[in-house]
Amino acid sequence: MLSLKFLTPFRIIFAISFILAGCTQSADQAGQQQNTTPPNIIFMIGDGMGFEYISAYRYAMSEPGAGTLAPTPFDDLLLGAATTYPDDDTWVTDSAASATALATGVKSYNGAIGIDANKHPQQNMMERARSQGWYTGAISTVHVNHATPASFFTHHPSRKMYEAIADSLATPLQPGVWRFDVLLGGGYRYFSRDDKNWLPELQQQGMTVITEFDQLTTTTTTPVLGLFAAEALPAAIDDQPRLASMTQTALRLLTAKQQQQQQPFALMVEGSQIDWCGHANDIACAVHEMKDFAQALDVVLAYQKEHPNTLIVITADHSTGGLTLGQGGEYAWYSQKVMGITASLEVMTRELLELPRNQWREYLQPRLNLELTEEEWHRIAAVEVPAEAKGRDRQKAIRSAIVPIISSHTRTGWTTSGHTAVDVPVMAIGPGSEAFRGYQDNTDIGKALLKLIR
Amino acid sequence: MLSLKFLTPFRIIFAISFILAGCTQSADQAGQQQNTTPPNIIFMIGDGMGFEYISAYRYAMSEPGAGTLAPTPFDDLLLGAATTYPDDDTWVTDSAASATALATGVKSYNGAIGIDANKHPQQNMMERARSQGWYTGAISTVHVNHATPASFFTHHPSRKMYEAIADSLATPLQPGVWRFDVLLGGGYRYFSRDDKNWLPELQQQGMTVITEFDQLTTTTTTPVLGLFAAEALPAAIDDQPRLASMTQTALRLLTAKQQQQQQPFALMVEGSQIDWCGHANDIACAVHEMKDFAQALDVVLAYQKEHPNTLIVITADHSTGGLTLGQGGEYAWYSQKVMGITASLEVMTRELLELPRNQWREYLQPRLNLELTEEEWHRIAAVEVPAEAKGRDRQKAIRSAIVPIISSHTRTGWTTSGHTAVDVPVMAIGPGSEAFRGYQDNTDIGKALLKLIR
Repeated sequence: MLSLKFLTPFRIIFAISFILAGCTQSADQAGQQQNTTPPNIIFMIGDGMGFEYISAYRYAMSEPGAGTLAPTPFDDLLLGAATTYPDDDTWVTDSAASATALATGVKSYNGAIGIDANKHPQQNMMERARSQGWYTGAISTVHVNHATPASFFTHHPSRKMYEAIADSLATPLQPGVWRFDVLLGGGYRYFSRDDKNWLPELQQQGMTVITEFDQLTTTTTTPVLGLFAAEALPAAIDDQPRLASMTQTALRLLTAKQQQQQQPFALMVEGSQIDWCGHANDIACAVHEMKDFAQALDVVLAYQKEHPNTLIVITADHSTGGLTLGQGGEYAWYSQKVMGITASLEVMTRELLELPRNQWREYLQPRLNLELTEEEWHRIAAVEVPAEAKGRDRQKAIRSAIVPIISSHTRTGWTTSGHTAVDVPVMAIGPGSEAFRGYQDNTDIGKALLKLIR
Repeated sequence: MLSLKFLTPFRIIFAISFILAGCTQSADQAGQQQNTTPPNIIFMIGDGMGFEYISAYRYAMSEPGAGTLAPTPFDDLLLGAATTYPDDDTWVTDSAASATALATGVKSYNGAIGIDANKHPQQNMMERARSQGWYTGAISTVHVNHATPASFFTHHPSRKMYEAIADSLATPLQPGVWRFDVLLGGGYRYFSRDDKNWLPELQQQGMTVITEFDQLTTTTTTPVLGLFAAEALPAAIDDQPRLASMTQTALRLLTAKQQQQQQPFALMVEGSQIDWCGHANDIACAVHEMKDFAQALDVVLAYQKEHPNTLIVITADHSTGGLTLGQGGEYAWYSQKVMGITASLEVMTRELLELPRNQWREYLQPRLNLELTEEEWHRIAAVEVPAEAKGRDRQKAIRSAIVPIISSHTRTGWTTSGHTAVDVPVMAIGPGSEAFRGYQDNTDIGKALLKLIR
């Protein structure tokens, strides 16, 4: 028992401090740390990344029958799941309504960019960040004026207003205050148009504009607008992975800003084409986009280790394609066959259209790497491309012959070319991450993040 | 600042106790409560209940366009997700391998009941509970000798050995020690067979055997074996919900045992037919089974409130059918159309086979409650039932015509008549629930539960 006779006033102070220190530590251990400086926020959105995409990625990275699974950067981060329904009676959201929910905390209709159902603009994450003197940034693997990044910066009644969204992005929030310090992705053609070429104008006003991917590593000035493709970047399966490099650069530039003035940053990182592969019902494409996203997450996790006052939140806006890992009654999903496919259906169907049909098999075999039956080869060769079909529709006709064959060989299931209403994963780590536990709505995620920007 | 001159020794003791009390409370708040008495364990398994089934249930219970969602008992419980792959190279588990993982913490092959890949019996949850003097029980809405409950009590190389599993369940673990205090579900015909009628024998040895559902409320003695159907109980959509009543009785009987001797209990509650509806690609059936399971969860949560030293863990063994809430490109899932369907496809197809085809439309219309086109009615009426097909296969032929029509009207997607490899939800509440956070494997769930039985 504690002997009291030795407790001089100073010893008492020491003893109480010691006990209190123990208390603090216990509260810390419980993750209840109160931090006075708001954390940096890195908000990663896997567009279309339902739970089934994470399962597919994990199994695709693992060796079947090995008895253990390959580790993924998602493994230690799962906290909950989110409902994604839009402000109508369909339950199925599009990327615009969901990004608006995530960026503003407000439900809206499908197509809405940063406005509510009554078309009133809602303060978004990057505007709030700017109002508090924070640094801001966003990265996308499609055009930076696409629905998801657009909803984090701008307000428009329709996601289809690509040029107006580009105009908003290029226009300062108020004189001298750009909407972003870093904005990287595709979409060159929307900023450099016949009716308006923003790029020289932006440069004149002090913005760094880069259009070559190699410039990423050498860029040291902000604000920076990086536009590395006319529209979307190439799919990861057809090219090099790009999200990790862009993320690395964004973090380097934002951290440099912080050395000038100690203010947190808010960065949105979108794995944009997980969704596009889902729309195309292209499983190999989807798994490679997941890998691209996972590599960006590795970069972000390493950053968070070095800069612990950083909150990382990862979610999806919805799931796409009705992907499932099981098809046609067989109890199997052939991950290795999926990983044997070497090109996206987008590229394969585009290139097939340039070839005579008697060369299709020769072209497809080394790209699909599946043991097709003669009947299946015949089915592909005999596909009808409607004479009146143009562009993507001609590709779609061929795709609709190939997808069921890939599906039955790999046992990958798809139910739609659109989105689904199934809840999506919510992952987080860092100060404030406790707010994202359990079931929540996508607007709750937005609200919780906005609350942290103070 | 703390004035030291008033700190007499007794005041110091008081002050330190007060500070220490603060510490303890902070640790408690962090869920780090150390309980000396192991908690009761209620392990609820929604067979086939992937995330998409919870989404479907929530949206089916909610009013489209109302702007808010109906509360569900799942809302506050989600902690993580689990991988479910079996011990082979397919990634897709069956209910036997997954139940074995959940009950023993050991991976095995599809079909295995409580044994590992080398066919060595593994201690299961109920055996471990008995070895520690705990009370045990299980509830199923299919036959109690089906794969899931079987894996919690017995050891067999194949789930198909229904009679041998029934024999094991009816045989004491050791002289005078039954495997269960409460076992409720279906499966009468496996215990009362031509070659062996266990029921009089069991009664003679002191077991209460009940076969009428009404007897549930009046039964006061244990061990009790309740077999309320020859095989499975009727589907919830075709009959009354039954899981909540069986759960209520099991909890009453197990709590009464605890008044004799203070020992915890382990109870497994299976929502068995979520899976069966998934296999049949029957969305209305699935949502009603989810409701049945949710009502049982309500009972369990109310019990936990009254008896806080109770751990509830809820998961699924796998997802079934490749269910998604989105089909055919449209951005919608018509939950109200799903809720307008009044019978299972199992019952509808069975009854259609008894009717002349010119009465099919009249029979189906008030059960489907969908606005079918003339072409769709024609397609159903023209379905070919192969002359050689028997029993279930005849029903399956009709079902294969109706499912795509329900799918396109309600925008429900299915990809398989089997299971999928997609990760499943993990929910928990109560002492020890922290062990189930984040991504985990189904064997981790089993191991964590076994560790609590001490």
